[in-house]
Amino acid sequence: MRSKMRVSALNLMDLLNQPSYHHIFRQFHNKKCHKGERVSGPGMRNDNILIVSSGQLRVFLSYGEREFTLYYLESGDIFSTHTRAYIEAVKESVILTLPTKIFHQLLMTYPEIGMQMTGILGDMLGSSWDIIESIIFHDAKTRLIAFILSLGKERGMVTENGTEFECDLTMEDISLIIGSTRQTTSSLFNVLIKDGDIMRIGKNKYAIGDITALSIRLAEYKA
Amino acid sequence: MRSKMRVSALNLMDLLNQPSYHHIFRQFHNKKCHKGERVSGPGMRNDNILIVSSGQLRVFLSYGEREFTLYYLESGDIFSTHTRAYIEAVKESVILTLPTKIFHQLLMTYPEIGMQMTGILGDMLGSSWDIIESIIFHDAKTRLIAFILSLGKERGMVTENGTEFECDLTMEDISLIIGSTRQTTSSLFNVLIKDGDIMRIGKNKYAIGDITALSIRLAEYKA
Repeated sequence: MRSKMRVSALNLMDLLNQPSYHHIFRQFHNKKCHKGERVSGPGMRNDNILIVSSGQLRVFLSYGEREFTLYYLESGDIFSTHTRAYIEAVKESVILTLPTKIFHQLLMTYPEIGMQMTGILGDMLGSSWDIIESIIFHDAKTRLIAFILSLGKERGMVTENGTEFECDLTMEDISLIIGSTRQTTSSLFNVLIKDGDIMRIGKNKYAIGDITALSIRLAEYKA
Repeated sequence: MRSKMRVSALNLMDLLNQPSYHHIFRQFHNKKCHKGERVSGPGMRNDNILIVSSGQLRVFLSYGEREFTLYYLESGDIFSTHTRAYIEAVKESVILTLPTKIFHQLLMTYPEIGMQMTGILGDMLGSSWDIIESIIFHDAKTRLIAFILSLGKERGMVTENGTEFECDLTMEDISLIIGSTRQTTSSLFNVLIKDGDIMRIGKNKYAIGDITALSIRLAEYKA
């Protein structure tokens, strides 16, 4: 399971920040989004593409009172407001928007942007399959361990505690990522701490004692 | 839930069949695939894009002995051999393949193909979210009814029996689409027949007695 903390390794901003694309960049509309603000949802009529300039936004599906997190968008990530998913700012954020129609014209003029879009959409598709695989074939405990390992591998630093990583997600946030209830996620998490697999080092700071051993355990759970 | 019987409404063959693209078409390699043949899998090294010329192929995830069907590919659908999914011919099929590297060069020269690719990938992404939503928020019965309704709406003909449609999928096939066991799928299907919601009209032929009533029931189940 990917950590969902990165939609794609490709960063459209790296391309658009080049001097030769400045005239494109100028066509984007700058928008501040406050923490907790609903940026887009399936009911809304606007059809824009958005690029995250700064901050963090959550993309999720919702049904009745239930939610499921698909991705977290960070600086450089691109998305569309015209999907069935909801987008919400989880931190103070700045996004750049452009009507999809105009973006399509850009794709015709600058095929390299289209190429990059194809790569980003391919990554998002792969990430969706990760989610499907983890839900269909694995249980919540396996999904939680996979998620923690993905964080450790993506942003972990080796210290005397093992693999330390920062994570400011609440149990609620994590439960919406792994597709379980907050209660189940919380008790599974506490078992991992009790068993010494992970340690709480400080505020929003954790360590995986032995990342290799936990990876092996994960492979065993999955089998 | 989409019926998965169509990856995208966009058809790349319609574009490539135009006279101005014949020289591109000629670069593709023609390959016959026998029924049951494994065309591609995550272990294989080749990195091609494939377009279905005729027949039908199934794209699925596999874990141990378990499988889950993501899409059925039919004439005009495009896919990549370089993913974590398996591709298998379910009917005698002909596919056209082209190394991904060469396809990328084409995207740079013909941005309209890139545009169409963006649309197709967007549709596939939406379809993946449909799957995630149906698994996370709904049970197997709801998923089965949604799947049957999607077939009825997509290919049904109104007759004195209700909405008639053809379906040559086995219970095993359907269970891999809705993400349930063959046994559960089979007994849920029999309940729908016993309750008069659907009728078996003949070989591979079914009818939904009252498609509006079943749609309303589905909405109620989902609530």
